[in-house]
Parts: sequence; structure tokens; C-alpha cells
Amino acid sequence: MGSGAEFGKIVVFGVGLIGGSFALALKAAGQAEEIVGFGRSLSTLTLALDRGIIDRIGIDPGQETADADLVLLATPVGRMPEIMARIAPYLGGETIVTDGGSTKSDVVAAAREHFGARAAQFVPAHPIAGAENSGAAAARADLYRNRKVVLTPLPENPVLNVARVRSAWEWCGGEIFELAPDEHDRVFAAVSHLPHLLAFALVHGLAAREDSRLYFDFAASGFRDFTRIAASHPEMWRDICLANKRALLGELDRYREQLDELRGALSRGDGAALEKTFGLARAARRAWGAGKTG
Amino acid sequence: MGSGAEFGKIVVFGVGLIGGSFALALKAAGQAEEIVGFGRSLSTLTLALDRGIIDRIGIDPGQETADADLVLLATPVGRMPEIMARIAPYLGGETIVTDGGSTKSDVVAAAREHFGARAAQFVPAHPIAGAENSGAAAARADLYRNRKVVLTPLPENPVLNVARVRSAWEWCGGEIFELAPDEHDRVFAAVSHLPHLLAFALVHGLAAREDSRLYFDFAASGFRDFTRIAASHPEMWRDICLANKRALLGELDRYREQLDELRGALSRGDGAALEKTFGLARAARRAWGAGKTG
Repeated sequence: MGSGAEFGKIVVFGVGLIGGSFALALKAAGQAEEIVGFGRSLSTLTLALDRGIIDRIGIDPGQETADADLVLLATPVGRMPEIMARIAPYLGGETIVTDGGSTKSDVVAAAREHFGARAAQFVPAHPIAGAENSGAAAARADLYRNRKVVLTPLPENPVLNVARVRSAWEWCGGEIFELAPDEHDRVFAAVSHLPHLLAFALVHGLAAREDSRLYFDFAASGFRDFTRIAASHPEMWRDICLANKRALLGELDRYREQLDELRGALSRGDGAALEKTFGLARAARRAWGAGKTG
Repeated sequence: MGSGAEFGKIVVFGVGLIGGSFALALKAAGQAEEIVGFGRSLSTLTLALDRGIIDRIGIDPGQETADADLVLLATPVGRMPEIMARIAPYLGGETIVTDGGSTKSDVVAAAREHFGARAAQFVPAHPIAGAENSGAAAARADLYRNRKVVLTPLPENPVLNVARVRSAWEWCGGEIFELAPDEHDRVFAAVSHLPHLLAFALVHGLAAREDSRLYFDFAASGFRDFTRIAASHPEMWRDICLANKRALLGELDRYREQLDELRGALSRGDGAALEKTFGLARAARRAWGAGKTG
């Protein structure tokens, strides 16, 4: 269309933090001619429209998808299968679909089920840009700047489709990596999903006590940082846990073994064992922290 | 002595973050005539002298303690009993002793054992100002400003002694609370000691893997905050865990029950139970966060 934009029409399902920031970033880069948004509530869609995140509120998912260049699924992962089922019959031959879900094996399985042979047009992705804030109000054009984005391409994806999705996330400012879907889920079960579960469990266990106020009154900065992720979105994390159930259960069981070992050392008063474990953890955490830019 | 300072000579055992900041704060407030420091290494003591944290490096603990107004024990809690044993025979009749340890029942027990009838001169305290940095280099006069300081007075403490210790911590800028020693230990086992153990366990479990680098490569901001306390001082945390073993084991077991419940919900795919727990945790965490000034 002569606008110089890499993408013509982009359809975004879920115009919250993830989908909204993707839309804002591509618009800011001048790489999207038109962005059409779908969502569960009219108020969110109206806010997205008012904020310039989307150009139009979509009415008919099938019709909008048919001539779209790019479709982003940015809903909680539990809602993606129904959207895939809904758009699959109408998917244009040139349309590429990607997603922003925090789990990948389940999304890939749903794509194979609902898209069938057209799963070749689906390139799964996971931008690592979580935040305890969510919604269209929190979306911003620079959310993905210098953040990692993991693509988990399917064997049947044409190289061109992967390159197009890579390009879209690069325009958002992301640093692109590739993992196999199950490798992705294993890694994120350990470094993201498990910590969320652990933080939710700690805060819930305190909040459920009759004298919970006494505990919260003396909680300080260590507690604050440790539990920051316990303020995350319950529905989103329910979906992530269920979607990555197998890997997460595995990590949870490994973690309980770690705790059992520490409990044993503590119980028998084995200070040397405690100090050794703490020391190895400290060294690893410091090395990791020193390697990070921010 | 006409200086207008509330305290004449103050003796500090351990001139690191806790003891050094106490000394700097009282000096900045003009409330200490002389500060004498003891420590394990000459280099730390020399640094403390150079930084103006202390006025003199102590040679003989007994002699220095005999005519001191105030003694602060600011070593790891595991080292306090030997210091108490060392100074007990020389303790002046007017000398008040306090400490900065993160656990209190064990410190109280050691004080009763070593000070005997003079335990009335010992007023236990815990300034809530942990940091992953430690040492004399990290000490600063404003560390305790607007931080909570918990006193756990003994029944035999004269009111005057409690008031003197309270005053010292107030000059440091602290907000003073009182708890019974075992109540203190129960609360801090839950909101501080357990989270440290959990964070150490998580990082150690990842660092011990052959492919640990893959995991750390994709760890992001949630992991960063959750594991910040895993960079804490191993020896200090060994001592805290051992000193508060009974309460910590109790909290650890309660926590494992929480985890078991979540594991059960996850295992049977009970999304409603997960979402409910996460939602309650989020609400409690947000309410707590909103009540904090920073």
C-alpha cells in the first residue's frame, strides 16, 4: 500500500499489557498500517481505542482474520483454543498467526488441533515481559525494548513465516531466541512458574491466619521483593499453571526435595550443610545478577 | 562530662552493617561521647576507624565493658554467647547491654546463662534493616531511619533500662515496637527466615544442574526479585536458622502443607482452587503493599 510499513492489517486478540504493548510498539515503529482489536469487554476495547492502541474494534473474528497479515493471540493461554477454533476456518492463505503466551507446548497442541495443516502458519512466541500490572491501561510502546522474546517454531513452519514473526518482535525492540516448545516450558516452569507458585503459597499461608496482621506488620524489604510476584493476575497464573502442569509438577517435586534436604540439615543442626547450600546459592545469584544489565 | 550526649562510652562488638550503622547514627546525633569497637579482623576494625565509625579499637573486652554506658552485640547471633561469657564477669553495675540479632529466644537464653542475675541489664533488640550487603563499608548513619526496631524486654528488666535502649534506637531514627521473644521469633520465622530459606533452596536447586546456564539465561525480573535475598550472607543465615530452628521448622512444615494443597489442586487440574488461592494471595499482597511507604 506504499506506506512503507512491513505489516498491513494486524489483528490482536486481547488488548491488555501484552497485546496492547505489541500494537503500540509496531505503530511507534511505523510498521503496522491498521490494527484491529478483539477483547472480552467493551470498556477495555474502548480504552484501547482511546489510547491509540488499536484503530478499530473488531466485530467478526473470521472476517477480520481472513485478510490480515498478522494475528496476535494475547489472551490468557486458557482462552486461546477457542479463538483458534473460531478463526481457523477463515484463516487467509498469507496470514501468519503468533501468540504471546507464557507456555508453549499447550498452545502448540491447540494450534495443531484447531489449525490442522494450517498450523504451518502459526509461529508460537513468548515475550519475557511480565509485570504485576495488566490491562490496556498498562500497555506501553517500550515494554519489549531489550527484553527477551522466545520463539518456539514448529518443524512445519516455513522459514519465511518464522522470519516474519521474528521481524515483528524485533520491531518491538525484543532480543530474539529460539527454543523447542517443551524445552521452553521446562525452563520457564523452573525460573518463572514455580517462583510464582511459591510466592502465592507463602502470602496465602500468612493471610489465612487469624493473627495475620501481626505477621504483615513486621514484614520488611526481603518479604516485599520475595512476594512481589504474588500480586500477579490470578486467572492468568491459573491458566499458566494448568497449561504447564506436567513440567511444573516436576519442578515442584524437585523443589520439595531441595526443601527436604534443607529441613534435614536444619533439624539435625547441621550448620555446615546449611552454610554450604546458602553459600552456593549466594555465589550463583551474585554471578547471575552481575551478568544482568538491569 | 558536659558534652550533652546521652551516652558516654559505647562498646560495639561487630562493626559491620548493623553495629557500624548504630555507631554512625549515634555519633551523627551527637549522643555518644566515645565508641570503642571490637571485631574479628583487624582490617575491618581499621576500616571502621578510618570511616569514623569507632573512635578506638578495643583491646580488652572486660576492661572496656566495665565502665561503658552501653554495649551493643552486633555479631552473628552464633557468636554472641562467647562474647557474653567473656564480658559477664566485668560488666559494670550501670552498664546496659543490647544486641542487634535477628533472633531473640536464643539470645535471651544465652544472656540468662552467662549474665545470670545481671540479665536484668540486658535488653534484647532487633532492628529490621537487613540488606544483602554487609560489613563496615556498607554501614551508614541513616540505615535505621524510619525502620522498625523490635525490643523484646525481659520481665526482670528495670523500666529505666528498657527506656535507655529504646532511646538509643530512637536516636538512630527507628520506630520502636515491643514483642515477647518467642512471639518475635515466630513472626520472623514466617516473614523473614522462611523466605530466605525458600530463596536459597530455589537458586541452589538451579545452580546444581548441569544445564543451569540455560535456566539462568531466561530468568527475568520476577526471578530477580524473588531471589534477591538468596544473595544474603551464608554464615549469618546459618546462625539465624539454627538459632530459630524450632519456629523455622514449624513454619517450614506449615508451608509444605500449603504447597501440598496447591500441588493437589494442580495435579487434579482444579483451576478454581488455584485461582482462589492466587486471588486471596494477590489481595493480601496488594493490601500490604498499599500500606507501606516504601
